[in-house]
Amino acid sequence: MKLICGVDLGGTKLSAALFDQKGILIGKEITHDHVNETTDGIVRVIAELIKTLLKNNSVLLTDILGIGVGLAGHILYKKGIIITTSNFKVTFTNYPFVEKMSSYFPGVKILLDNDANVQALGEYMYGAGKGFESIVFITVSTGVGSGIVLNGKLLRGKNGTAGEIGHSIIEYKSKYLCTCGNYGCAMAHSSGLFLPELYKHKLESGMTSSIGLNLDNISSFDGHFLKKGVNEGDRISISIMNESADIIGASVFNIHKMLDPDAVIIGGGLMHLGDKYMSRIKTEFKFLMHDMMEDEMVIKHSEIGADAGLLGAASLLLE
Amino acid sequence: MKLICGVDLGGTKLSAALFDQKGILIGKEITHDHVNETTDGIVRVIAELIKTLLKNNSVLLTDILGIGVGLAGHILYKKGIIITTSNFKVTFTNYPFVEKMSSYFPGVKILLDNDANVQALGEYMYGAGKGFESIVFITVSTGVGSGIVLNGKLLRGKNGTAGEIGHSIIEYKSKYLCTCGNYGCAMAHSSGLFLPELYKHKLESGMTSSIGLNLDNISSFDGHFLKKGVNEGDRISISIMNESADIIGASVFNIHKMLDPDAVIIGGGLMHLGDKYMSRIKTEFKFLMHDMMEDEMVIKHSEIGADAGLLGAASLLLE
Repeated sequence: MKLICGVDLGGTKLSAALFDQKGILIGKEITHDHVNETTDGIVRVIAELIKTLLKNNSVLLTDILGIGVGLAGHILYKKGIIITTSNFKVTFTNYPFVEKMSSYFPGVKILLDNDANVQALGEYMYGAGKGFESIVFITVSTGVGSGIVLNGKLLRGKNGTAGEIGHSIIEYKSKYLCTCGNYGCAMAHSSGLFLPELYKHKLESGMTSSIGLNLDNISSFDGHFLKKGVNEGDRISISIMNESADIIGASVFNIHKMLDPDAVIIGGGLMHLGDKYMSRIKTEFKFLMHDMMEDEMVIKHSEIGADAGLLGAASLLLE
Repeated sequence: MKLICGVDLGGTKLSAALFDQKGILIGKEITHDHVNETTDGIVRVIAELIKTLLKNNSVLLTDILGIGVGLAGHILYKKGIIITTSNFKVTFTNYPFVEKMSSYFPGVKILLDNDANVQALGEYMYGAGKGFESIVFITVSTGVGSGIVLNGKLLRGKNGTAGEIGHSIIEYKSKYLCTCGNYGCAMAHSSGLFLPELYKHKLESGMTSSIGLNLDNISSFDGHFLKKGVNEGDRISISIMNESADIIGASVFNIHKMLDPDAVIIGGGLMHLGDKYMSRIKTEFKFLMHDMMEDEMVIKHSEIGADAGLLGAASLLLE
């Protein structure tokens, strides 16, 4: 049975891996050589990395089903085009990524999608979503991303932007402004990027903190600080964790109302806060559900670890 | 080509109609005889009405593709079961509707779904959604209902509750309590049922109204009053219309973020407020979109008129 090749293209780290169709890792290569490249240069580095990967594992191009690539950005899947990106030194703008990649691998199937979508598909096929018909995957990290898998297929939408649960409005009259330009989207109330802002609001509302951050140095308040604060019983940290969990719980509720999937899988950096965070998310969801549900929706932690982006990208070939 | 038969089962009105597959009305019957019946009695009245309809139009059971039924309630489509209803004198609870209907029409295909879903499918096949791949239909009426059609198929979800956009949380810290038990769902901020409550809040916040309603008689503040107030330039009425439109506009934005459909079709009683209401919905949507969309999503008024429920129910047979 042919292997599948996945590429996880991040701003600072580029990795490529081979898996068998059961999701078992065969080999992996990592590089940072793409960081200062042009857009075309990045594609060249990816191609070189894949060729190294194949060589080091004695695998021929004819032994693989194709190459799947995942990256953070706005992607038009059908056309293989990157509309825009925001976490590379260069910006891909309406960039024909699949066409460029194909020049290095003529005749090889190359697929491209955004990082949340590929992780959703990976969890669906190999992780916490295995065995369900329809799932939604949410990653609560620097931002809040998500991907929707309905009956084995990613829901991409007309413009490729389906699943942007992080930018759905959940507090219409919110005081929190998101980078998307709107007040009150879920991301502005819950994600890593906004931890300093949430901390600032707590300080300004008169709450005190025991972790020694004040208005001058709150920019360093990140997920690690939050976890430390929660573990030490810091009042502001616990309040922020709860607020984030409540908004994610309400977002899970909105997903249930809109899509009624079998399961919602949650991953991302903030899940390292541990059971307290996940259990607060579930409590908020159940609170909002009252007795409206006769067949309970599953809420689970993501199961694919460090290789989620790679395995997810590779799984595009089996969608 | 065979005809399709649709049944619109309401609390006070029951109607049945025959259409050709192009959606042209062939014949229609209406009755109110079901109002005081038991659940089984209601099914018997429906069966009698369909038999009358067929007879009056000289149509045989073998001339129809089947019978589609739409009603307000929680439906399990695949099983043909009504989980629960709230707008009949009797309550259907885990009621095997399709099985009961089949005893009157052995061998005839009988399909059942909720009113918002059948209207969504009707608009998709014969109305404002014609020609699009994927649409969401919203009805802003006594409540806020909706149906999602993706690539020609209704999205029903695991429990048959997909598309409940009206009960999605849109103002997490809202003071408005919905009949669903939650604060801040879209319905509590925008639908006919909550007009008196919205009016009360405006009065209590110190706003004055020129339409002569006060705290003692605000329960009569309905869609007609609202329209009259708006047309007369009443400050509270205009404020309520705008608030409702803003929340619907933000809901349309959330639909775009979640599903990225080709079009959102809006119908229901409050749309009789006219262009001012629809244009405010579109303005709010565009405000929230900023410049994030390269290919504009269509927002349209529903096109099927009085027979939307009937044609929608009949269209289940062609899904």
